[in-house]
Amino acid sequence: MHRSHTNGELRLTDVGKEVILSGWVQKSRDLGGMTFVDLRDRYGITQVVFNMDTNAELCTAARKLGREFVIKVNGNVIERSSKNAKMNTGDIEIIATSLEILNAAKTPPFTIEDESDGGDDLRMQWRFLDLRRNPLKNNLMLRHRISIEARKYLDSLSFLEIETPYLIKSTPEGARDFVVPSRMNPGQFYALPQSPQTFKQLLMVSGYDRYYQIVRCFRDEDLRADRQPEFTQIDCEMAFVEQEDILNTFEGMIRHLFKTVKNVDIAEVPRMLYSDAMHHYGSDKPDIRFEMKFQYLNDLMQNKGFNVFDSAEAVIGIVAPGCASYTRKQVDELTEWVKRPQIGAKGLVYCMCNEDGTFKSSVDKFYSQEDWKAIAEKAGAKAGDLILVLSGGLDSTRKQLNELRLLMGTRLGLRNPDNWAPLWVLDFPLLEWSEESGRWHAMHHPFTSPKPEHIALLDTDPGAVNANAYDFVLNGVEIGGGSIRIHDRDVQSRMFDLLGFSQEEAKAQFGFLLNAFEYGAPPHGGIAFGFDRLCSLFGGSEGIRDFIAFPKNNSGRDVMIDAPSAIADAQLEELSISVTND
Amino acid sequence: MHRSHTNGELRLTDVGKEVILSGWVQKSRDLGGMTFVDLRDRYGITQVVFNMDTNAELCTAARKLGREFVIKVNGNVIERSSKNAKMNTGDIEIIATSLEILNAAKTPPFTIEDESDGGDDLRMQWRFLDLRRNPLKNNLMLRHRISIEARKYLDSLSFLEIETPYLIKSTPEGARDFVVPSRMNPGQFYALPQSPQTFKQLLMVSGYDRYYQIVRCFRDEDLRADRQPEFTQIDCEMAFVEQEDILNTFEGMIRHLFKTVKNVDIAEVPRMLYSDAMHHYGSDKPDIRFEMKFQYLNDLMQNKGFNVFDSAEAVIGIVAPGCASYTRKQVDELTEWVKRPQIGAKGLVYCMCNEDGTFKSSVDKFYSQEDWKAIAEKAGAKAGDLILVLSGGLDSTRKQLNELRLLMGTRLGLRNPDNWAPLWVLDFPLLEWSEESGRWHAMHHPFTSPKPEHIALLDTDPGAVNANAYDFVLNGVEIGGGSIRIHDRDVQSRMFDLLGFSQEEAKAQFGFLLNAFEYGAPPHGGIAFGFDRLCSLFGGSEGIRDFIAFPKNNSGRDVMIDAPSAIADAQLEELSISVTND
Repeated sequence: MHRSHTNGELRLTDVGKEVILSGWVQKSRDLGGMTFVDLRDRYGITQVVFNMDTNAELCTAARKLGREFVIKVNGNVIERSSKNAKMNTGDIEIIATSLEILNAAKTPPFTIEDESDGGDDLRMQWRFLDLRRNPLKNNLMLRHRISIEARKYLDSLSFLEIETPYLIKSTPEGARDFVVPSRMNPGQFYALPQSPQTFKQLLMVSGYDRYYQIVRCFRDEDLRADRQPEFTQIDCEMAFVEQEDILNTFEGMIRHLFKTVKNVDIAEVPRMLYSDAMHHYGSDKPDIRFEMKFQYLNDLMQNKGFNVFDSAEAVIGIVAPGCASYTRKQVDELTEWVKRPQIGAKGLVYCMCNEDGTFKSSVDKFYSQEDWKAIAEKAGAKAGDLILVLSGGLDSTRKQLNELRLLMGTRLGLRNPDNWAPLWVLDFPLLEWSEESGRWHAMHHPFTSPKPEHIALLDTDPGAVNANAYDFVLNGVEIGGGSIRIHDRDVQSRMFDLLGFSQEEAKAQFGFLLNAFEYGAPPHGGIAFGFDRLCSLFGGSEGIRDFIAFPKNNSGRDVMIDAPSAIADAQLEELSISVTND
Repeated sequence: MHRSHTNGELRLTDVGKEVILSGWVQKSRDLGGMTFVDLRDRYGITQVVFNMDTNAELCTAARKLGREFVIKVNGNVIERSSKNAKMNTGDIEIIATSLEILNAAKTPPFTIEDESDGGDDLRMQWRFLDLRRNPLKNNLMLRHRISIEARKYLDSLSFLEIETPYLIKSTPEGARDFVVPSRMNPGQFYALPQSPQTFKQLLMVSGYDRYYQIVRCFRDEDLRADRQPEFTQIDCEMAFVEQEDILNTFEGMIRHLFKTVKNVDIAEVPRMLYSDAMHHYGSDKPDIRFEMKFQYLNDLMQNKGFNVFDSAEAVIGIVAPGCASYTRKQVDELTEWVKRPQIGAKGLVYCMCNEDGTFKSSVDKFYSQEDWKAIAEKAGAKAGDLILVLSGGLDSTRKQLNELRLLMGTRLGLRNPDNWAPLWVLDFPLLEWSEESGRWHAMHHPFTSPKPEHIALLDTDPGAVNANAYDFVLNGVEIGGGSIRIHDRDVQSRMFDLLGFSQEEAKAQFGFLLNAFEYGAPPHGGIAFGFDRLCSLFGGSEGIRDFIAFPKNNSGRDVMIDAPSAIADAQLEELSISVTND
């Protein structure tokens, strides 16, 4: 037997017991006559004592233990004289009676502590050591708990987890597919699914009216910090439902997860139209932990001689509460910040609303105190506040001001990760025009249903058609999105037309789905949650990498196992492919 | 709202309620004044009545409904005059007050009934319709239930489900990999995992001492009826354990699944050494629902002048109880059966043990009544039994006789799928010699630990080394297998040597694991269960295909979505690969 107890388990009530413990040497302190070893496993740390007086041989052996050695100790549980209230096992310690080294360890390349001295690259390369640290361990345990509770909730509502295939068919719509050459079908390829979208719709046609799957998805996109080539979704679909049913069901799931995993009560989730989100926050995933809504100032700030604003489509401001005391250096820094290429503003107009009722702005030449009074009044700025104004095209100004708003929210401490602000964003547009490809693209995906009352607009004004599509946003991060689907073959065909598919292409790519719609497809809809992101938010982080056991870096590489890598010529030959040189 | 109740829900206590039901038209009977529609969904069937006298318009509309139309019905629940005890909802029916066709349906290419008129190919092509049939629906619901209960059991024992990557590194050992070209790393490939083996071992090194994952695995092998290119495992690993801990833990899981899913109590699972399994049954996965053990007859049947036996390495028989009355035609047919190329026996010797105490064999020329009496006594054959004897090389004779034994078990009704015979098979050999490659191959995989007491044999007699490896067998089907792993770098290196890896190859392929073993790897071991097969056995079937929602055919094709398929030249170019023509 390697252990009778874990290292997080023993209490005062166990005093007097003979136990066997195994684990890693977290640290070892040699106090002359006594050697103390902190023995670690997933469950905690237990202090083991070796005494030179009573067992010199054993104590001498213990002195030689290095960090991260794996050992097995037999011993007796005694009460500690100096208790450690910070440890679950802090009331007891083990007087060792025997010691076995199960495996020695080289000195790790970085310290296995909550705050490690290892850099990112080093820790990725030695991921199996990094995973020993508490922060990562807690993340993975949180992830497990969320998945268990999500399944419990969905199972209680008669949802069935149904596995869909990973070797499917490549489709040109959406992001880039990863593909898999087929040995048995030379010259042909499978694709890895970007999501099980069409399969879950087929399952609705098959009558499985409540489906879910916690499932891996794959997108061959260029990577960013919060994006991985493979990621996990809680993928769901329901039949015989309307949008309201889906919103209620999955609001319930999020509420269940918050309650069971974090013991947080979530009130009814507010809802916001996409158009309002864009109007007030310049974002389809507004962080509503704080207000700082957009103020549209065209009427008050144009035609005052300030050319920049006069020629702008939009003049929009926000009010930063209590920031009138910002120094010149501080506002200059903000100006530089919005002018960075990532944000792209041309400049920043600001106005301090002084405590004495006067105003001091960067454009005093054009705007009188009376002008600013009216502006401040409209914008809801009070004495002591700072008004920040951007201008330009409507879309770009909203985008830039959204970034500035989030920055100010962060700086003002309004974005506490323990403050939870969930939000439904509703009524997304069905389509968006791509200048690049000169055609309409599906904003959600080609299977999203236009609002029934907008179907006539598909012919006359496609850009004005709204969809029964919704996103679930948490603290300014989109963690879920879905829609009511098309279940009518004619509407689906029309949608493919609009997206520039020829009838032949539509049939070749999605013939099975169009077929399915002719054999009794029920009304249906669904949603998918980004599981990695959900876990990271629950864990108080916006980065997903440390919530995934073995993530890839920004080049799509697993640096620990050194993948991807070259494969043997014989493998290529069997697969009827060759590598081309550029 | 599309429905107030499902079609499996309404009972006598609901009489008087106004309800809304939706579903598929299972069938429709027009009895002149009345039209009866059986409305189906996942939950059951409810009878809906349309009355020509009270609402002619509605009844006329109902008469036009075809099979598999999706409809929505408002109506009132009444007690049925002629109740149907076979249906959960058989006490009531719905008097329809309105009818809406949610979606019309073409006539399906086969009937949506428990026994369909559609052939295999047709049903695979229209899988989304086949999935509407009860047998498949019940299979997928069973699968969901098993996965929920497996997770519940493992979670209760502090196992963590940890997701491992699907885009990993190709390794030459084992079966053929599916590979995925990397766009961002031209000329390099990921592989899809054949199992998460090395990752779960790394997790043990990381301290996650109880891991599991219900996970998809991929093998690019030529397919058979019970093999799919992608399949699902319940993959598990534990640290600080010995074989006994693993056997007990997972015997507990199987017992939990039987109890919660099938309400079957499983007694303690018997254990059998691999060597005994091969000796008594000629198989490493014996079906022990029936005895019919091998009888080694060399001593009694050689040197009697029968050349075939005299020159054979092994003469082995089985006793088919009560089959002495087989006709000549029947035994001839058995002889033909064992001579088929799939079995490969040269012939079959038989002997009827007549009720009168005499014997009648196919080789009376060589064996006297006394000889047969001795043989029957040794083999445990009684009057009325049939002795069947094969001979040849030991391995091939065992293999052939195993097949014959299973055939006789089936014919004698000894293999009832509702009779459960689980079995642990223990102490598999570590290595097997491949004549083809002229080297040793790992019988389980290269990470399996030799029995400590056999380590010295690695140098002198590798074939005699047994492993701490075990299989879980259910009714003659291997549904799980695992081993205690090597956790010592030197032993692992020696194993790679034996398997013909150069040091460079071992380092290039498994360097990360060898590294890991130098930084404190605990003793560990694990097991993986074939989830598809487990589900099919629980469902009373040996074929896995109907326990997978969207399986592939024997050419690895999904004929419904028509995958794999050619991809665009632009995709190939981006991936820096091209298709070669043979």
